[in-house]
Amino acid sequence: MKTRNVFFVSVVLTLWNASSSGFAADLLPSWNPTTAREALVNFVQKVTTPDSPHFVQVSERIAVFDNDGTLWAEQPMYFQAAFIFDRIKQLAPKNPGWKQKEPFASVLRGDVKSALAGGKKAFLEMAMATHAGMTAEEFTKIVTQWLSTAKHPTTRRPYTEMVYQPMLELLTYLRANGFKTFIVSGGGIEFMRPWVERVYGIPPEQVVGSSIKTSYEVRDEKPLIVRLPELNFIDDKAGKPIGIHQHIGRRPIMAFGNSDGDFEMLEWTTSGTGARFGLLVHHTDAEREWAYDRESHIGKLDRGLDEASARNWVLVNMKKDWNKILAKTP
Amino acid sequence: MKTRNVFFVSVVLTLWNASSSGFAADLLPSWNPTTAREALVNFVQKVTTPDSPHFVQVSERIAVFDNDGTLWAEQPMYFQAAFIFDRIKQLAPKNPGWKQKEPFASVLRGDVKSALAGGKKAFLEMAMATHAGMTAEEFTKIVTQWLSTAKHPTTRRPYTEMVYQPMLELLTYLRANGFKTFIVSGGGIEFMRPWVERVYGIPPEQVVGSSIKTSYEVRDEKPLIVRLPELNFIDDKAGKPIGIHQHIGRRPIMAFGNSDGDFEMLEWTTSGTGARFGLLVHHTDAEREWAYDRESHIGKLDRGLDEASARNWVLVNMKKDWNKILAKTP
Repeated sequence: MKTRNVFFVSVVLTLWNASSSGFAADLLPSWNPTTAREALVNFVQKVTTPDSPHFVQVSERIAVFDNDGTLWAEQPMYFQAAFIFDRIKQLAPKNPGWKQKEPFASVLRGDVKSALAGGKKAFLEMAMATHAGMTAEEFTKIVTQWLSTAKHPTTRRPYTEMVYQPMLELLTYLRANGFKTFIVSGGGIEFMRPWVERVYGIPPEQVVGSSIKTSYEVRDEKPLIVRLPELNFIDDKAGKPIGIHQHIGRRPIMAFGNSDGDFEMLEWTTSGTGARFGLLVHHTDAEREWAYDRESHIGKLDRGLDEASARNWVLVNMKKDWNKILAKTP
Repeated sequence: MKTRNVFFVSVVLTLWNASSSGFAADLLPSWNPTTAREALVNFVQKVTTPDSPHFVQVSERIAVFDNDGTLWAEQPMYFQAAFIFDRIKQLAPKNPGWKQKEPFASVLRGDVKSALAGGKKAFLEMAMATHAGMTAEEFTKIVTQWLSTAKHPTTRRPYTEMVYQPMLELLTYLRANGFKTFIVSGGGIEFMRPWVERVYGIPPEQVVGSSIKTSYEVRDEKPLIVRLPELNFIDDKAGKPIGIHQHIGRRPIMAFGNSDGDFEMLEWTTSGTGARFGLLVHHTDAEREWAYDRESHIGKLDRGLDEASARNWVLVNMKKDWNKILAKTP
């Protein structure tokens, strides 16, 4: 009965909060009291106050978050790319031909730059060699195992501790105010699902991402989902509103991103009727994290910087607006 | 403040119930006290009782429901097919060539049988002519308007009142026990989303269905999702576990269907580890509804009838197990 009571009390508290307006702005301690934080809190107050002309009912409180560069870091390369390279090294003994075959040969020599020189085609080939050919269940195990041992090359933290403390607080704050939080990422949907519930509190069914095709097969009376080496959907740029439409089926009222890959997601979200909120995280802190924008090959933010102000999107200046960057290690 | 308190109290009651075990079997008054109802209640009790060896945590309580023939009726033809035929008649003045062109000419003469004689290709052509070429928003309006006026050919009820009362009770019962309920239907995802939240209490983001491709376009500075005349995904047979994997990302523990199109969904659901539940609605009541199974061109149930018992799937005999069939009209 103890479990039951703890569950009950915690849920009641959450819901009491959800039913009050703009509750718990003090859930955002890592946000400095600057205009970005103020804009966030004002928006949440106005859509959750029952008598406000901007009130939004709970079912429509949908908030979407990019992942790479928005919820967790993305330098010096997308973490999923690090997974691909590590996985190629692991699989090399079973693929002796790779030593003579690009882009695999470069990866095995530790020359990532040359491996990536082959462009999209080479990258796709590496992605398929490491993401397809196993069951969905097996892939989940592979990702989980990699995350439990792999370390970020400069911070030496596990990748799941490369998440932004202010964004974790924001997720909690929004959910305490009745929002349903979704990830809408260019990253692989099955690369995210094994860990985002534990790390972000976002369940697998609220993850939208890029995917490969799968097939349903029954082998020895055991049904399996098998991952095929064929692209299904790229959830980036104009793909993001399409993914949102397909998966969520209603237009979000808040969207959070950090790069031009998120531009259309913010555009789609903020052009609906009623109160709308768009926010771009601008990576400005070379000391505590990384500083990059218009010229970066990862997380390029160019058009977003130009148009944020005219579109009333909030630009978070990481250096100025966040007093903590990475989450505390557990 | 009154609204807030009513919201709060109702949510607290729901959650108090969700935290107790097997609450509110009396939420199922339209189910006769037969073995089907008993199996349902026993299963829910065993997965929601904290001390049970079969206990399932709330986040894993996923239940999936087919729609046509499971939540609402499907005779004398799928209701979405009735929509297609009505829509062709509406669009005929703008498409004068249809009078000479099959399968449209047959539809316009009221000869549905000949229109369907062209098989899948002809049906797809009619589906695309009526489901594509407009924005997502426009399509939602078209569906909503059709449902507000169209009547079922024999009962003269609006189609949204052709839903099964016992299944509405079951949805409520499962949600009161902490389950998240999803639709997984061969029907069009955007044909269902406009009304399933109101009728079934299932939000758009918990609907999996067949779909066509869409594009994201900005016209006169207005972003739009445009529906394209190209199939994206068929959520039927082996497509159902694939759709579940893509959309939900975890294996359900309960699955409800009525035809061989649901076979793989039940197979996938009930072959996972731990407690599992599969149920097929068998249409046996020619007086109150329709009686059909192995030989029916709609909702064919053949393999399911053969294998239900060996697979421990519950077969609902509508005539015997349900004391009401259609929902009360509001």
